[in-house]
Amino acid sequence: MRTHYCGQLNASHIDQIVTLCGWNHRRRDHGGVIFIDLRDREGLAQVVCDPDRPEMFALAESVRGEYVLKITGKVRRRPAGTENPNMPSGEVEILCHELEVLNAAVTPPFQLDDDNLSENVRLVNRVIDLRRPQMQKNMMLRYKTARAFRRFLDDNGFIDIETPMLTKSTPEGARDYLVPSRVHPGQFFALPQSPQLFKQLLMVAGFDRYYQIVKCFRDEDLRADRQPEFTQVDIETSFMDEAQITAIIEKLIRYVFKDAIAVDLPDPFPRMSYAEAMRRFGSDKPDLRVTLELTEVTDAVQDVAFKVFSGPATSGGRVAALRIPGGATLTRGEIDGYTEFVKIYGAKGLAYIKVNDASKLNEEGLQSPIVKNIHEAALKTIVERTGAQSGDLIFFGADKTKVVNDALGALRSKIGHEKGYLNGKAWEPLWVVDFPMFEYSEEDKRWTACHHPFTSPKDGHEELMATNPGECLAKAYDLALNGWEIGGGSVRIHKADVQAKVFEALGIGEEEQRLKFGFLLDALRYGAPPHGGLAFGLDRIVTMMTGAESIRDVIAFPKTQRAQCLLTDAPSGVDEKQLRELHIRLRQKVETQVEVGKG
Amino acid sequence: MRTHYCGQLNASHIDQIVTLCGWNHRRRDHGGVIFIDLRDREGLAQVVCDPDRPEMFALAESVRGEYVLKITGKVRRRPAGTENPNMPSGEVEILCHELEVLNAAVTPPFQLDDDNLSENVRLVNRVIDLRRPQMQKNMMLRYKTARAFRRFLDDNGFIDIETPMLTKSTPEGARDYLVPSRVHPGQFFALPQSPQLFKQLLMVAGFDRYYQIVKCFRDEDLRADRQPEFTQVDIETSFMDEAQITAIIEKLIRYVFKDAIAVDLPDPFPRMSYAEAMRRFGSDKPDLRVTLELTEVTDAVQDVAFKVFSGPATSGGRVAALRIPGGATLTRGEIDGYTEFVKIYGAKGLAYIKVNDASKLNEEGLQSPIVKNIHEAALKTIVERTGAQSGDLIFFGADKTKVVNDALGALRSKIGHEKGYLNGKAWEPLWVVDFPMFEYSEEDKRWTACHHPFTSPKDGHEELMATNPGECLAKAYDLALNGWEIGGGSVRIHKADVQAKVFEALGIGEEEQRLKFGFLLDALRYGAPPHGGLAFGLDRIVTMMTGAESIRDVIAFPKTQRAQCLLTDAPSGVDEKQLRELHIRLRQKVETQVEVGKG
Repeated sequence: MRTHYCGQLNASHIDQIVTLCGWNHRRRDHGGVIFIDLRDREGLAQVVCDPDRPEMFALAESVRGEYVLKITGKVRRRPAGTENPNMPSGEVEILCHELEVLNAAVTPPFQLDDDNLSENVRLVNRVIDLRRPQMQKNMMLRYKTARAFRRFLDDNGFIDIETPMLTKSTPEGARDYLVPSRVHPGQFFALPQSPQLFKQLLMVAGFDRYYQIVKCFRDEDLRADRQPEFTQVDIETSFMDEAQITAIIEKLIRYVFKDAIAVDLPDPFPRMSYAEAMRRFGSDKPDLRVTLELTEVTDAVQDVAFKVFSGPATSGGRVAALRIPGGATLTRGEIDGYTEFVKIYGAKGLAYIKVNDASKLNEEGLQSPIVKNIHEAALKTIVERTGAQSGDLIFFGADKTKVVNDALGALRSKIGHEKGYLNGKAWEPLWVVDFPMFEYSEEDKRWTACHHPFTSPKDGHEELMATNPGECLAKAYDLALNGWEIGGGSVRIHKADVQAKVFEALGIGEEEQRLKFGFLLDALRYGAPPHGGLAFGLDRIVTMMTGAESIRDVIAFPKTQRAQCLLTDAPSGVDEKQLRELHIRLRQKVETQVEVGKG
Repeated sequence: MRTHYCGQLNASHIDQIVTLCGWNHRRRDHGGVIFIDLRDREGLAQVVCDPDRPEMFALAESVRGEYVLKITGKVRRRPAGTENPNMPSGEVEILCHELEVLNAAVTPPFQLDDDNLSENVRLVNRVIDLRRPQMQKNMMLRYKTARAFRRFLDDNGFIDIETPMLTKSTPEGARDYLVPSRVHPGQFFALPQSPQLFKQLLMVAGFDRYYQIVKCFRDEDLRADRQPEFTQVDIETSFMDEAQITAIIEKLIRYVFKDAIAVDLPDPFPRMSYAEAMRRFGSDKPDLRVTLELTEVTDAVQDVAFKVFSGPATSGGRVAALRIPGGATLTRGEIDGYTEFVKIYGAKGLAYIKVNDASKLNEEGLQSPIVKNIHEAALKTIVERTGAQSGDLIFFGADKTKVVNDALGALRSKIGHEKGYLNGKAWEPLWVVDFPMFEYSEEDKRWTACHHPFTSPKDGHEELMATNPGECLAKAYDLALNGWEIGGGSVRIHKADVQAKVFEALGIGEEEQRLKFGFLLDALRYGAPPHGGLAFGLDRIVTMMTGAESIRDVIAFPKTQRAQCLLTDAPSGVDEKQLRELHIRLRQKVETQVEVGKG
């Protein structure tokens, strides 16, 4: 129906007769002439309706906001001084010859340029919301990003293979979405939390290089960056070791950023062990743009009088310092705010020292009520190791290691961004490697898998699985970017006996192994190649690229944090007949019936 | 780890040192030398292990079927007379210098070249089954086909946008898979039967051209060509009419066949109205490779004495003839077989006339017990219209129109393929257009949508929706290929008042409209562009391309016809705790408890 997109017109089209289709974005009546900014996917074009075509002009007068129009006219240069440099088509306008109203529109619930909309209103009226130029850009960028992933992977011999959506519950740690079976009463499919086992089976089947951009599902309580269904760029390859896998993945992600948003990421990406990342940044996905660092002082405060420090320091906890250069200027109110902030992460408080004079290791030089209970040797170590200068402030975390890392890691990032302790770079990727194989769950009183139970131990660490699980490192690697984990993966176990040892270390007995993972153990016995891979979170990557506040802004039809679609009103009630066919009934209803029976 | 894929080696690599990784496909010991056919994704390479490297040779002697090997050696030309022209690498072999066993393998459950495997055995051992060269080819072709779809759509301005998997029940006619909500007790998501409404909403939102290769779900009893989850190439565009949409779709499918399997489909595709297709072929997806045709004789047999014909002919049914040229040679047994065959489609029998002498319109020329009860004028019409010649055979269908079409349409195809009434072409695409808007459901005693309720009536047919729904035609089009429907679509309704009229004709009241489709009706009011689209069944297209017998052969991990995954044993039982969290309980279990209570 059209000859051009609105946003594509420019001076090269002058004197051409063009036909455009789109929406009346804005109509102005000025000097007896009607101006219509016609909008389509590619942008806006200014259409001029002159009264010397009376029939067309009368129709133009009836055009209201968001009417769908078809316009034929002649492209001409805008009069000098009326050009709009902010519009791609800003040099030209279309003198309208013919106007057709393809569809009328009622007044939309909000103006497209209204920036003060609640997310609720936006999600209820998502169709209108998606018309907003920012959302159009977001969806286009998402598409371009996924396309860039595909192009690189296609060009490098990776094959897109679809894995099932209706599958068996996999033990990824999160809760499954279940789908009752009609044909098999009392049985359920699970929606996949990831295609992990299937992609490993594809390696055993010999497909060599696999990828898939695929929906995954986790029925968890939602945080800002989570959705019940999310999209993973899932990758697996055979006959490559950790260095080779991370090298090609790095190349991939550099290609994607260049292609989608014209950003050059560094080559190569820096690498850091998990242990170093936790020690220096309290995080396994540190934001390297922030220049602040944690300093280990656990060893130095074991015998101080200050029990808040010596307690954790002598009972397997951690005491760490966070030096804020020039931080002595922080107000009492700011420090109180930070103290509240670290409580989110389980810290009981936030000790600190104002460094009035770094050369005086006493209450005069180091202003803080805690100083009198810390002996001079410890103070000396603290000042030396942190490199504190007069005018600085030092925060302390002292608790179980996890609490200290979480609290100071988050505080480091918060102060870094709020107070500008930044290195000035826009993008800081980082490989975090040498993750532990296991972490001890206090809740379950057993070792659990840090990554997942299919991750290979590092060469030489196989024996540690039985003798000292806490020291056993894994061939696992995460890709962090600006403080977010954007991808994670590992070299997998390809030998059945090693896999069995991991299950043993995790306390998964032979019967349970057989029941849950029999098909994997079988596959490992039938000639599994060395293999490994990684999965990227597409939603998160695109969110970071767009600078959006929420991943919901890069998903066309997202769910709320209460896991609802406000547009279609899902989930919703269903007919009793449907439940009967699925051999299930509602718990609540059954209870009600029982009560009625009692009455 | 490797320098080349096995299947890629050829004479150009002679004298190079290469490293290969793969599986021991076959080992032969011959003349004191060990030959290993090493297999990877790209094919086979012959590796020669000489005893003059004793350590390597000893290891080679230990290698069994499906062991995973890494081999380094020198490429050399095979001795004259031992080349294998059936192998891409058949001119060369690799003299092994180093051999490493990357993983051992137990004896596989079957040989990869065993062609007599039950599907059950293959699906239980799917990982091994996928190693077979045919399955490797199928998955690769599936990938190439999907990639070709993407490339064309990318190059033509279509944007890939993801729509939700956890959504609201849509009324596509089939049964939904339901997903209980944990957060909202008693409420359910539905897995999408298609992204139909979402893609229309994306058009209203202004994305102009959309596509998605997406999983869809139908909980139906399965036929050979159906799966609970299947993959759709889903397409929608704005500001195009039916002719423009079918033109670009045609270009797309020609591109895909050319790119994926180097087939040139005709340009343009032939088009046929639904009415003509049913009249001539008894099918809305006729296989045009078959040269047989139905002939209408309803009008000619209204007053014959033979009640089997005159009954349907005078009560709104159909009487049609199927001429089989030279069919007088069919044996009694064959004809009995066809008679049984048409009963599958509801026919009560299969009348026929053997044409001994086409010039004699009596029992002598036309051999059949029915001839004496059909007057000469009718016999004359039958012979003239069918063009019957001496030596032909004419089958008849006489029943309700649907039964006649189904029975004779299927019989036409069966005899055509079995007896070779074929035009010799490999691929016969056909657009079937001008579908009816509605068909009357005897079961529900109301009109139902032929395509779906969002399909636009043909221009000028809007009034018929209320006055004569049976005559109302739709802007709907199916793409048939060799007797299969590979895609179907329509121009959608873009005006709220037309949509409301369709719902009225379907007997969907205002309250139900609001409840089920409120968000669509709202969207149509806010400025919906003219739009339409189509969806292809990817599984079926790839099945046709590969010549596979079942779509299960082009799906990596398919379900059986009982909707089970034999590899992972899904669906399966789940913990009571999971059900409690989802606010449901099993019906059977509850009943059992009640019974126990009674005892």
